[in-house]
Amino acid sequence: MASWIPIAETSDFSLQNLPYGIFSTDNSDPRIGVAIGEYVIDLKILAEEGVLGNLGSGGDTLKQSTLNAYAALGKDVHSRVRQTLQRLLEKDTQSGDALRDNQPLRDKAFVPLSNVRMHLPMVIGDYTDFFVGLHHAVTCAGLVKPGATIEQLCPCFYNLPIAYNGRASSVVVSETPLHRPNGQFPVDGKLVSGPCRKLDFEVEFACFIGRGNELGTSIEVDSAEDHIFGFVLMNDWSARDIQMYEATLMGPFNGKSFCTTVSPWIVTPEALESFRVAPKKTPRELPEYLVQKKEKSAYNIPIRATLGANGQRYRVADCNTNNVIFSFAQMLAHHTRGGCPLRTGDLIATGTLSGPERENAGCLLEQTRGGTEPYEMIAENSATGNVRRAYLEDNDVITFTARASGRGGNVGFGSCAGKILPAP
Amino acid sequence: MASWIPIAETSDFSLQNLPYGIFSTDNSDPRIGVAIGEYVIDLKILAEEGVLGNLGSGGDTLKQSTLNAYAALGKDVHSRVRQTLQRLLEKDTQSGDALRDNQPLRDKAFVPLSNVRMHLPMVIGDYTDFFVGLHHAVTCAGLVKPGATIEQLCPCFYNLPIAYNGRASSVVVSETPLHRPNGQFPVDGKLVSGPCRKLDFEVEFACFIGRGNELGTSIEVDSAEDHIFGFVLMNDWSARDIQMYEATLMGPFNGKSFCTTVSPWIVTPEALESFRVAPKKTPRELPEYLVQKKEKSAYNIPIRATLGANGQRYRVADCNTNNVIFSFAQMLAHHTRGGCPLRTGDLIATGTLSGPERENAGCLLEQTRGGTEPYEMIAENSATGNVRRAYLEDNDVITFTARASGRGGNVGFGSCAGKILPAP
Repeated sequence: MASWIPIAETSDFSLQNLPYGIFSTDNSDPRIGVAIGEYVIDLKILAEEGVLGNLGSGGDTLKQSTLNAYAALGKDVHSRVRQTLQRLLEKDTQSGDALRDNQPLRDKAFVPLSNVRMHLPMVIGDYTDFFVGLHHAVTCAGLVKPGATIEQLCPCFYNLPIAYNGRASSVVVSETPLHRPNGQFPVDGKLVSGPCRKLDFEVEFACFIGRGNELGTSIEVDSAEDHIFGFVLMNDWSARDIQMYEATLMGPFNGKSFCTTVSPWIVTPEALESFRVAPKKTPRELPEYLVQKKEKSAYNIPIRATLGANGQRYRVADCNTNNVIFSFAQMLAHHTRGGCPLRTGDLIATGTLSGPERENAGCLLEQTRGGTEPYEMIAENSATGNVRRAYLEDNDVITFTARASGRGGNVGFGSCAGKILPAP
Repeated sequence: MASWIPIAETSDFSLQNLPYGIFSTDNSDPRIGVAIGEYVIDLKILAEEGVLGNLGSGGDTLKQSTLNAYAALGKDVHSRVRQTLQRLLEKDTQSGDALRDNQPLRDKAFVPLSNVRMHLPMVIGDYTDFFVGLHHAVTCAGLVKPGATIEQLCPCFYNLPIAYNGRASSVVVSETPLHRPNGQFPVDGKLVSGPCRKLDFEVEFACFIGRGNELGTSIEVDSAEDHIFGFVLMNDWSARDIQMYEATLMGPFNGKSFCTTVSPWIVTPEALESFRVAPKKTPRELPEYLVQKKEKSAYNIPIRATLGANGQRYRVADCNTNNVIFSFAQMLAHHTRGGCPLRTGDLIATGTLSGPERENAGCLLEQTRGGTEPYEMIAENSATGNVRRAYLEDNDVITFTARASGRGGNVGFGSCAGKILPAP
């Protein structure tokens, strides 16, 4: 699918993608945009000019400063807007007058990506972090308790998608710097209070909820995908020393609540349709509420993590969204099984997406065997030396990128990046 | 402190109390009110009539449908409004013209409590449930693992206030019915999927945050009380079978996310000032960030739990807010120690407030030794027989009430009640 807008082969944002985000410029307040090539299209302006067709009672939702109201309209509306945008933007558009040949409107509605500042795309009511990565779970079990299997530590692991409630207030958009957190943890058997010494990242994939459900109702697994507005990359920054000390009874708390970073562009389910794949099989028979008819319920999207340090960039890990034993649909069905309400804007993440080998480890806890075996990270510019890390250092920048490539062009996520500042 | 409004000796709402809530009537949308005697005072109307004095830029906050904007103004404003209300309402008021002798305004602004419907008082961003009840922790440790101490299960228990992130979307106001949740759990060694069989309540005390803090900053323990807008009772309904099966690695999730009930009236710190008491001592030396200068940092407020069943009311337990090893100030200091932002409207709870004896157990898990020793609950009307419970049954109503009584009159919380409906 070609567009009259120039789209480089290396661009994440093909005509097949069209992800939503919230952007602002020096001259405009935060508003809804769609990325294509090197541009953001200002949907507020297109909606005001009436070129997006009749959205009925949802017409005003595209003029707001978050995506919540628009996401709540449901997938039929999103599908219609996507088709309209593709029709307007395709190379041989029949609707050239509306946008392509309307230079004054193009001047207003197209903003170079290099000129915009991105914001958190949705107001997040609750944020849930699942733990459905197969290799991450198996490896971490052995690290937490040498010789232990994940089923010994967590008998339900293969029977249901386990999760903890994350901290919505600490979710930030990519490029927001974070401070190394202070906390309590033992060092050589002695309890200390001070800056975290085992700061880590976690490579995750997450969805934003479009339509929610009411308290006391459940979402059926086979219709659960209708509740997903779209997907982002997520870095669940983790303070391993704080986390391991605090979490034995109630799960992660301060070890995870100092910052969680998401990529700014919400990629829609429609854009990812051709990258479907089955999740990893669980070895247990599932109860009916988790049996999903659609077999290809996960996605095959490679995610790369890199480290920026000393002015260089180093390869850290290659993960994939397919390393999960449950799909998002199964996660939503389980999340609401007891009647818990999901709301528009809720953020639901997979947990760490490690693959089977050390170079596929989605966090340093795994990659460095709990910090005991520092990992050699290879410089992208081979002229510079490599770098070793046990855990993250101040001023390190961790960046995730992800791109699925198909016949329709690249469907990429932009980047999910954060720089570590010293502890306050 | 006497008022010209008749206040019964059995009323929770003396002139010393003046708690805030959100109410509506058949004729009015949700709005801010203050309870006194058998009435709600409509603060929107008082603000519009200008009898509350000049609130500066905060003047419009009392005309909103939640307490968030008002709570964010900070304690100086709240203190001024409280003083103004007490001056207007005291028996020998010098400002009789403004309200007492202004019958048309009284007719508009005073609404009988029996005519109002109460709503959730604040929009809750995040909800955090701590676990700082001494007796609850000690007893539950032995139930989860016979012979185990709480420090064996949770080495940090006495060193820091532990907590898990709760589910904000499932917090409801008193009188909202709840469904018995469905879930997965083992029964006699076999995994089943269906309605919870071990449904429980938990007696808790909670605060709503007034002013928050920014990401990457911490709240100092000695100024933390300034961030508290006020207090409510809370029932952290728990599905013990679902919880015990799912929570071994990541803490409580579906076992707690089907419903959490709060009482509708937010009692202010000023109203509770004379009921201060020291928390229980922890046996460990605390790090500096948790050392609070003010010794009387907890409260002495008895909370009673009753069961409504068969048209009767039975006494279940007598707890007290003083059964904690950490104060709210210490909880907030710890919560933000790593830089986690609190926001206006966040709900922060203590965990279960059991006392030392069986009749002080704040949940059935403790009171019935994990369901193995059903508890005989005494009818308030001695003519009817008692009732026995291992766990809760469908149509049971659990109600918490709490009242501190001092020279200034009663400072009560109204009630925190919920009725259990069958599983969907």
